[in-house]
Amino acid sequence: MTSASPSRNRTGPRRTTAVCLVSGGMDSFVAAAVAREEGWQPFCLTVSYGQRHRREIACARRIAAFLGAGHRVVSLDLSWTRSALTDRSVPVPDGETAGIPPTYVPARNTIFISLALACAEVLDAGAIFTGMTAVDFSGYPDCRPDYLAAFQALVDRATKKTAEGGTIVLRAPLLELSKAEIVRLGIRLGLDFSITWSCYRGGRKPCGRCPSCLLRARGFSEAGVPDPLLR
Amino acid sequence: MTSASPSRNRTGPRRTTAVCLVSGGMDSFVAAAVAREEGWQPFCLTVSYGQRHRREIACARRIAAFLGAGHRVVSLDLSWTRSALTDRSVPVPDGETAGIPPTYVPARNTIFISLALACAEVLDAGAIFTGMTAVDFSGYPDCRPDYLAAFQALVDRATKKTAEGGTIVLRAPLLELSKAEIVRLGIRLGLDFSITWSCYRGGRKPCGRCPSCLLRARGFSEAGVPDPLLR
Repeated sequence: MTSASPSRNRTGPRRTTAVCLVSGGMDSFVAAAVAREEGWQPFCLTVSYGQRHRREIACARRIAAFLGAGHRVVSLDLSWTRSALTDRSVPVPDGETAGIPPTYVPARNTIFISLALACAEVLDAGAIFTGMTAVDFSGYPDCRPDYLAAFQALVDRATKKTAEGGTIVLRAPLLELSKAEIVRLGIRLGLDFSITWSCYRGGRKPCGRCPSCLLRARGFSEAGVPDPLLR
Repeated sequence: MTSASPSRNRTGPRRTTAVCLVSGGMDSFVAAAVAREEGWQPFCLTVSYGQRHRREIACARRIAAFLGAGHRVVSLDLSWTRSALTDRSVPVPDGETAGIPPTYVPARNTIFISLALACAEVLDAGAIFTGMTAVDFSGYPDCRPDYLAAFQALVDRATKKTAEGGTIVLRAPLLELSKAEIVRLGIRLGLDFSITWSCYRGGRKPCGRCPSCLLRARGFSEAGVPDPLLR
């Protein structure tokens, strides 16, 4: 969105906090690592919303520890949204689907960024980082650049801090990246992808067939590196 | 915000749903009643966020029943926001306070409208009604007309429905009304204010001293009618 970043001095006594929405998946891990790379102090926020793949919450804890970041898990009941991710009577599809898939959770990004905004206000943070990407999810309305710009305009009017002239910048550093580019960026930043989780089914091992597993596999394949989770 | 309203035919087989954020207080009750008056089918959404005055949730149930509306209570943990409403170690002030008060919950309206947006998408609703008012809470950044306009711009880009050309209108019919005007409007609409709750302290009876009790008392006093809750 913008190029706002705090001082890059990592050894100084005080770095500005960036609230990083971390799901436990790869994208938000890389986005939070970008925040750290830019000199922000990441604070990770995870939403436990009754997702089928609850295993990703344990991964989010490992990711926060890896980044040396504070972490909060907020509980929110979204079982009523009738998504395949929150309602066990709606099956997760095998393979990729056309249009908006059954795993879409209505208004999820809007809700999560709103929660991050509350967290940013509490922590006096200067930024919110999300792992959203428009390239691989162009079917999702809430992953597009104009959506993010509209949310920034809302943030600018929504809080005590921003109403008084302060800034909370909404950042989506992966917005224009493909999955393969995200893999490469994570590797360049020294990230351990074995602590992430992508499979929607949330079993002991990735199912290898759901849209999220297929997307992840294609990303590693195109980046030319093995997925450490599958070793 | 806009004058969009569905068909006024209340006896027809199908009315368009409006998701109404109902807290259990007076304002959101009146706003939901305005929705019904305009011909929408109200569906009430209440957020149980660890508020001190949990009693208002029971009132929200009575309000939904009074309006003949469906009702959902969504649980969300906001105890970490350090507001006097969610953190028992932060006292509720007596009397009115200057500036943004300790009872302010960071980003609460943004979070609640986001949840209403998810609900609107699930129910294929055409509107979201909130009881926000700019007159008595001018210190709150997220109760202003430009905030609401910015949120409407976000809604227009945020969901499957709106991205495909559909409309979800964000309405705040009380935005420009004083508390006394809200009391008068509610009486005109035949509402029973004895089933509402305003006191922040949430004891068995209203404390009569907190900012919310004082505002309510002034509203009834200026409207020249007794508060049925105090009978």
